[in-house]
Amino acid sequence: MLLHTINEVRQQVKEWKKQGLTVGLVPTMGALHNGHLSLIKKAVEKCDKVVVSVFVNPIQFCAGEDLDKYPRTLEADTKLCEDNGVSIVFAPSPSEMYGEGQMRTNDFLTYVIPPFFYVNKLCGKSRVGHFDGVCTVVNKLFNIVQPDCAFFGQKDAQQLIIIKKMVKDLNIPVEIIPCPIVREDSGLALSSRNKYLSEEDKVHALVLNKILNNIKSCYQKGIKDVEMLKETAYQFLNEHHDLEYLEFMDQEDLEEVKIADDNTRVFIACKVAGVRLIDNILLGEG
Amino acid sequence: MLLHTINEVRQQVKEWKKQGLTVGLVPTMGALHNGHLSLIKKAVEKCDKVVVSVFVNPIQFCAGEDLDKYPRTLEADTKLCEDNGVSIVFAPSPSEMYGEGQMRTNDFLTYVIPPFFYVNKLCGKSRVGHFDGVCTVVNKLFNIVQPDCAFFGQKDAQQLIIIKKMVKDLNIPVEIIPCPIVREDSGLALSSRNKYLSEEDKVHALVLNKILNNIKSCYQKGIKDVEMLKETAYQFLNEHHDLEYLEFMDQEDLEEVKIADDNTRVFIACKVAGVRLIDNILLGEG
Repeated sequence: MLLHTINEVRQQVKEWKKQGLTVGLVPTMGALHNGHLSLIKKAVEKCDKVVVSVFVNPIQFCAGEDLDKYPRTLEADTKLCEDNGVSIVFAPSPSEMYGEGQMRTNDFLTYVIPPFFYVNKLCGKSRVGHFDGVCTVVNKLFNIVQPDCAFFGQKDAQQLIIIKKMVKDLNIPVEIIPCPIVREDSGLALSSRNKYLSEEDKVHALVLNKILNNIKSCYQKGIKDVEMLKETAYQFLNEHHDLEYLEFMDQEDLEEVKIADDNTRVFIACKVAGVRLIDNILLGEG
Repeated sequence: MLLHTINEVRQQVKEWKKQGLTVGLVPTMGALHNGHLSLIKKAVEKCDKVVVSVFVNPIQFCAGEDLDKYPRTLEADTKLCEDNGVSIVFAPSPSEMYGEGQMRTNDFLTYVIPPFFYVNKLCGKSRVGHFDGVCTVVNKLFNIVQPDCAFFGQKDAQQLIIIKKMVKDLNIPVEIIPCPIVREDSGLALSSRNKYLSEEDKVHALVLNKILNNIKSCYQKGIKDVEMLKETAYQFLNEHHDLEYLEFMDQEDLEEVKIADDNTRVFIACKVAGVRLIDNILLGEG
């Protein structure tokens, strides 16, 4: 069922709660791919009813980013959801979410602001204000849907860590379920922004995954020094790669790590053909 | 029932919700007086079960304010609540609310930040960060208790407007019930901080209410020009009064007003014997 208004969603969820059913939420910006599908499948498995929100959230895009050209495929998204047991696709308009003509700055809108320590690094460094927009919209969606569980991909690892922190800090009564990264056979992490890549670009994009796998394999062979592990990356990079960061951090509190251990997550961001791609790996898993 | 932990409150509320009972929340910092009592009575009247939170919230006190000396009277507060039909008094410790040893700055804590336009005036101007702390703790209390309704006094008018704005902006599923200012027979608005005043100070403190009443009566006689209405205040002030502000604003969106109408609220803050007192009046009511 495709719904566009907050009231409709609330009414339906209220009905379910009266019947004692559990509700799962999968927040998305649409352009659904197999990564999203894995979240949806997990949600359908775990909860009686599943809501997928499809909302390209304007306040999490920074100036100069791809808000206008971000892929919008609502018809296909709705079909995918319905074919896979989703009960509600919630696709509100920006004005349904933020009011008609309201200035969407923190001059006129209440924001949920994650801690500076978690934001002032990795993607937050170049995408100033991005995680404020993410936390604000996720908080709104939680309040609208009031789900028992919400499902987030490990692909956006910093986002996941920040949302878990928000839930803890604000005592939000929602269980956050992390879901593993889904990859093409080639190893490329799925992303809606992969649609911007040509076949040739995709070959260059494989480097992110290669660098992470190689670091993990070096780690497993006994190299723990982060500077040494970083060194192993450069052999993979050429003129097609514009590396933004390669960082080693504790997977819970995003504390920077000098000597890697099993709780260290390696984060990479790199532009390929002007498209900003991210990936990450936990050194201890598997 | 006096409870100190988040889990205990959640369990009890869950039980009530299963039984289909409605829940009201009265958030306080304790040192309860008849103003609070009027909120409690309204809550008990309107809801099946009432939770009163008693928490002197450290993150809403600014540097140099009275966090340490703020009156704490939990035993008397609990008795007053129980005598008046309150089901739970929730009195958490600061570490229960914010974690053991956690830095309570926005470096390490997720904050709910009200819009700058609503904050950069009246009390927010001198109490920098105060409303960030208020919104954050109220958001937390809403998530912990998940009440149907929450009750706030009109005395803290800017706070009430900001909380209503937060609820709207973040789609929080809680109905905000404003409650009128309660006054001593003398006209002095009740406040926990009145405990800092001597009997003589209290006489000087009456001026806040006198100024507001006089402005309202001038307005009712046909004076609408705000500058002229402001002029009427000065006759009441002497060396015992340190006026912080006297402002005329729209009661919904805190837009400054030049020509008063029935939706104009007049806000006053004034120090008497070093104690910061506030009061306000709506020109249209009564």
